[in-house]
Order: sequence, then C-alpha cells, then structure tokens
Amino acid sequence: MEMIKGGVTAAKGFEAASTAAGIKYKDRTDMALIYSQVPCQVAGTFTTNVVKAAPVKWDRQVVDSGKKSQAVIVNSGIANACTGAEGFGYCKDTAEAAAKYLSVDADGVLIGSTGVIGKQMPIDRLTAGIEALAGKKNDSLENGTEAAKAIMTTDTCEKELAVAIQVGGKTVTIGGMAKGSGMIHPNMCTMLAFITTDAAITKDALQKALSEDVVDTYNMISVDGDTSTNDTALVLANGIAENPVIEYGTADYEEFKNALHVINEYLAKKIAGDGEGATALFEVKVVGAETTEQAKMLAKSIACSNLTKTAIAGHDANWGRIVCAMGYSGAQFDPEKVDLFFESSAGKIQIAEDGVALDFSEEKATEILSQSEVTAIADVKMGEASATAWGCDLTHGYIEINADYRS
Amino acid sequence: MEMIKGGVTAAKGFEAASTAAGIKYKDRTDMALIYSQVPCQVAGTFTTNVVKAAPVKWDRQVVDSGKKSQAVIVNSGIANACTGAEGFGYCKDTAEAAAKYLSVDADGVLIGSTGVIGKQMPIDRLTAGIEALAGKKNDSLENGTEAAKAIMTTDTCEKELAVAIQVGGKTVTIGGMAKGSGMIHPNMCTMLAFITTDAAITKDALQKALSEDVVDTYNMISVDGDTSTNDTALVLANGIAENPVIEYGTADYEEFKNALHVINEYLAKKIAGDGEGATALFEVKVVGAETTEQAKMLAKSIACSNLTKTAIAGHDANWGRIVCAMGYSGAQFDPEKVDLFFESSAGKIQIAEDGVALDFSEEKATEILSQSEVTAIADVKMGEASATAWGCDLTHGYIEINADYRS
Repeated sequence: MEMIKGGVTAAKGFEAASTAAGIKYKDRTDMALIYSQVPCQVAGTFTTNVVKAAPVKWDRQVVDSGKKSQAVIVNSGIANACTGAEGFGYCKDTAEAAAKYLSVDADGVLIGSTGVIGKQMPIDRLTAGIEALAGKKNDSLENGTEAAKAIMTTDTCEKELAVAIQVGGKTVTIGGMAKGSGMIHPNMCTMLAFITTDAAITKDALQKALSEDVVDTYNMISVDGDTSTNDTALVLANGIAENPVIEYGTADYEEFKNALHVINEYLAKKIAGDGEGATALFEVKVVGAETTEQAKMLAKSIACSNLTKTAIAGHDANWGRIVCAMGYSGAQFDPEKVDLFFESSAGKIQIAEDGVALDFSEEKATEILSQSEVTAIADVKMGEASATAWGCDLTHGYIEINADYRS
Repeated sequence: MEMIKGGVTAAKGFEAASTAAGIKYKDRTDMALIYSQVPCQVAGTFTTNVVKAAPVKWDRQVVDSGKKSQAVIVNSGIANACTGAEGFGYCKDTAEAAAKYLSVDADGVLIGSTGVIGKQMPIDRLTAGIEALAGKKNDSLENGTEAAKAIMTTDTCEKELAVAIQVGGKTVTIGGMAKGSGMIHPNMCTMLAFITTDAAITKDALQKALSEDVVDTYNMISVDGDTSTNDTALVLANGIAENPVIEYGTADYEEFKNALHVINEYLAKKIAGDGEGATALFEVKVVGAETTEQAKMLAKSIACSNLTKTAIAGHDANWGRIVCAMGYSGAQFDPEKVDLFFESSAGKIQIAEDGVALDFSEEKATEILSQSEVTAIADVKMGEASATAWGCDLTHGYIEINADYRS
C-alpha cells in the first residue's frame, strides 16, 4: 500500500468541483460535487438516529435499489433534517437538476447535507449551484481539495487522504474526504465521508468492506455524544482501474478492505481531533479485555466523558474520572485490577496500578498531556481483546461555537 | 402537607454539626455530622457504577445488615474512591472514631464522601474532625444548614428542605439535604442526599418509599452525563414522632411517600439547577408517550445532550438539536408527529408542529429561554404516558471548573 496525494479525485475517472451557492454562508464555498466519468457501484452506511435527514432517506433508497451512481451533490449550511415532505421533495429536485446539468441518471444521484436542522433548503440557490458545479468540474487534485473545503461547517481544516494498492497487476486507488466537527458520535455512522475508488469490485463486496470497517473507525469517534441526523459514509467505485473484479472473501478483498480502513481511520481521527473547540486528539486504548465488545464499551465511555475531556483540556492527570467513566460504561470488569497509562510524543507514564494511584510525577504527566495528540491506555487484565476510540478535549471553544451556532 | 423551615434537623431528635477539618480545602468547613438521639431505621440507594467508592460499599453493608443507625459522617474534598483496601479500612476507622466520640454502635455508622477520586483520606484529620463534630452538635436549624454547606464541593449554594405531614394524629416531619454539582448523572442514584424523619416506619416501607421515588427524582437529573462512583441517598427514621408505625402499602405509606417525593424532587432540581457552571435549570417534559419508560428515555436524552445544553446557554431556540437527541435516545417514535414547546416565567411558545418548524417569533423564544428556569415540552402524540427530566445549560463555567478541578 502506498500513500499518495489527493482525496476524492485521486482515483482515475473522478472529478470534483466546489462553488459558493449562498445556501447559508456568505463569502465561502458551500457546495461540492463528486462526479465519475462512468457509473459506479455504490455502498453506504447511514445514521441510526430515528430522526433521519431527507438526504439520508434519499441515499438509502439509491443504495438499496442497486442502481449505479455517477454524482454526489453535497451542501453545507443547512442539514435538510426535520423538514418533512417538502424537504424530501428538494432531494428529488436536486437529483433532477444534477441529471439535467451533468447528463446522468437522476435515480443514481447521491446527496449529502450538513448544517442547521429544521430549516428548509433554498432550492433555487441549490439548483443554481449545481449548474455552476457542472461547469467547473475537473479531475485535478486541487478540485478535490476544494470540494473537501466546501463541505466544512465548524471544521477548521479539510480532511482528505488517498492510497494506492496493486490488484491483479493493476494499480487501484482509493481516496476520500470527510467533515466533522460537532454533533459527532456516529452510529452507523454530521459526519459526512465520501470515498472514491477506481477499483472494479462487486456491490456486495463494496458494501461489506464499508459496513465491516465503520464499526472500528467512524463508529469509534465522538466529539459530543450527539449522534447526528445526517451521518453518511458513501463509497463509489467506478472500475476504471481495470483490475480483476474484487469479490467478497478473497485475498484481493482483504487488501482492498485494509486500504479502505487506512482511509476511514485517518478521516475518523481527523474528525475527532478537529472536534468543535478541540485542542487535542484524545485517543483511548483499552487492552486486556475479555471481548472486543467489552473493550469498545469501555473505550467509548472514556472518550465520551465530559469530565475526562475537560481534564484533558486542563492537561490534568485526573485519572479517577477515567476509572469512573469505565465504571458506568455498562461493561463488567474488576476496578481493582485496572492499570492506567498516559502516552504522547512527550513519553509514557503509568498513573495507576491495580486500581490505585501510583506515586507518579505530576510534572511529567502534565507534559505528556499537553501535546496535541494524547493517548490513555487502560489494561483491565482479563483477556486478549482490545479496542481504540477517539475523541477530543472539551474546551471553551465548544461552548463558544455551540451556544450561538444557529443564529 | 406543610412546608416548614430547615433541613436534616427539622425532624424531632436529629442533631447536626459541621467543622473545618482541613481534608482538602482551606478556610471552609468540610465535614458534617447527622446524629439521631435514638437509633433509626435506615434506607439507602447507591450508585450503579461498577467502580464504587469505599463509603458506598460500607453503607451498603450497613443498610443490608438491617442494623439501626445513629450517625452519618460526611466529608467533602476527597471521594475515597479507587483507594483499594486502604480506603475501605479508613471507613472502619471513621466508624470506630464516631462510635467512640458519639457513644454509638460502630456497625451502624454511615459514611458519605465526595471530592477527588484516587486520593487516600488523611485519616488523622478525619478522626480529629469527628471529635470536633461530636462537641458541636445540636438540634438547631442553623446547624442543619451549616451541615448542608459543609458537604458542598463545586456547589454554589446549600440545598435543604423540610415538610410536615399528619400520620394517625401525630405530626411527622421529613427534612433533607443534598449536594451536587459535577459528575452528576445519578443512576441508583456525586450526588449525596441525606434525609431525616421522626416517622415511625418499618425498614421495609422506608426502603421501598426511597427506592420507588429515586427513579423519578434523582435518577432523572443530569449535569454532565457522568455517573459518579459515590452517589448515595440515605433516609434515617428515628420514630420520635410516635405515629402509628407506617407499613408498606397503606394510606399512611402513600402520604409518607408523597412527602418524601416533595423533598427528593426539590433536592434533585436544586442539584440540576446548581450544576457546575449552570446559569439555568433545564426542565424537559415528554408527554403523549406510549409508556413511562419511553418518555423517560426521550426526556433524559434531551436533558443530557451537550448540543441542546449549549443552545440553552445561548438562549437559542435551536429545536433541531432537541429532535436529534430524541432520535438517538433509543426510544422509538414518529419524528413527523412531534410537537415542541418552550416555556418559562416569560411565557410559552410552540416551536414545531408535526416535526416541522413553525414560523415562531425568535425574539419571544429568546426571551423565554433567557430565564433561570426553562422548560422544553415534547409531545410525541402516541399515548398518555409522560416523564420529566432535569438538567442545566452547558457553559464556560463548566469548562473553567473542570479543566482544573483537581489541582
């Protein structure tokens, strides 16, 4: 596997564009297009929130229909959630406008929206935006990056990555982009992630690769515990790499899935580290668990605890909050066997042994916790299973952003 | 039922005291004593966190043993949680010191601790504190109030209440005190609540009254979603009112339980409204649910959502976040049937009907949301069940307190 430059336009045959459609923001781009020169197999995973945004319902239909896709239209600023029949109608209008301006099949147009909930879409601006996107699209890496910027809301940086693998003597490329950065507690999986690949792969294998991987990547991050109405991860595969078609369960499938995992984990960590107001990526590793399920429950509970997250913001080795969060996770374990460590680029330190504080250096602990990526490791000494979750610190920035986001 | 003055010393035969023992804080009281002139029936509910503080384990033993109690020793500053066998030994030392200085049975001494997790108790200061408490105790209302102040950590005000009811021609008094205000997401039920009554009541009836009521009071509040290692609610009944003994299931039991509910609900709301950094009590009522369980899941999910809580801090009628939080609560409902209202002393306004925004006055909504007690009402129009949860807004104050609480 080779890391390469770019994002959604890294794979052969994919184009992108961005435009300032004035959906909600002034003076910035707020619409993006991903376009494939040929129809793609498509796989998707979506929010488990009972309240599903209109574009989530729309995309679910497209993915379930088995239809091939050639275009994804994404807007930031308005989520098109809690908008009733009117909001769903705008998805149809969006698909029809995309079909018209891009000469593609409307039934295969995918839609992503992120932003404020409960507001109707200014459909005229949206369709004008689609016309503009159609006129600007190309396959440059720059256009991919600009698309990643256009889908941001409170994100502070665009998130994209691409890798290349060899399948049957052919180079297969996978690239992706995603956005965070509030209402992030994916359970699929307003996280949006879009991944493109020129791999030839069956729809079944593509969906399984995505579904099997989101549980270890997007579903293991949390910024604020709020599972969005709009969470969407889509993978489009256009087959232009001309590799032997990847089938589920083969060695090629494993290779493809590993490469997809690299993209997903990178984007997931970027989303967590760029959480609203965050100054640090907070990684939590639980080791020595009896089962992966138990390790995941413990890791997520720590990563989601407001008290743990504010302690990280304060660079304070307040380890009792970590053990407390493990205790209410729902997972069983023996608190008097837990070993705790903090680790970062500044070193590693053990804080507790068998559930009781060690006489550690507070100074060293504070130095370790003052880095931009901080890891807490909890060993429950029951077995061999482990899991990793990612979150961020909880700071004044989160309050600033969210106490007045809508207005 | 009559509201009367006072707290834990309102009921006959109860005395209290407070002292500055220097456990962690300087220049303030940090230990409290509740003492009954005669042995009491005692009921308790405790944290469901797998990690239980030493005093929780100790009290559980006392309550389960059926032994009568005459004294509760409470300290703030150190939680005595994650302290292993050494920490549990300090509970025994505490009970023995109380037995010595108060001439009571050590096996019936109850203990409450709140504060930082993972630090050992300075036992010499604690036992010196018990000697001081024994010398200062009396049955004045002032001493009850001072005890309520001594158990505070980040609380901004003491929390106490007392009521009187008539049972068989005798006046029965119930009084209580509690403390918040972080790591508050009771599930029993560092919430500590201590209630005293001079009622004559069987241990069985006392425990049932408490257990049946905590699920609608303390278990329905949340400050930060973190279920503490130390949550404890205790009721002591000394029988000095000389009423006919209250038995489970009788009309007197219902009267007693109603009075206990008034105390518990008042203290629970005070804890929520005085949550760390809070500027408003956030009440959430879910009505029209099919079952109480469903209504509770929905109400708690809204009250616990960081995004909803920051919107309340910003006085922003960002109702989409409320519907979103309902959606990931785990309860099933039809998002397209939900009606939403905000209410406070400034009036009531409908925000959404059948899951879609109404054209409401933003100005009026902001005025309603700017009061110190704000209620959100969600009608899911499925049945007759309802539930109420209480939380608070999430502000810079919470970050300030918790990003540097321990040090």
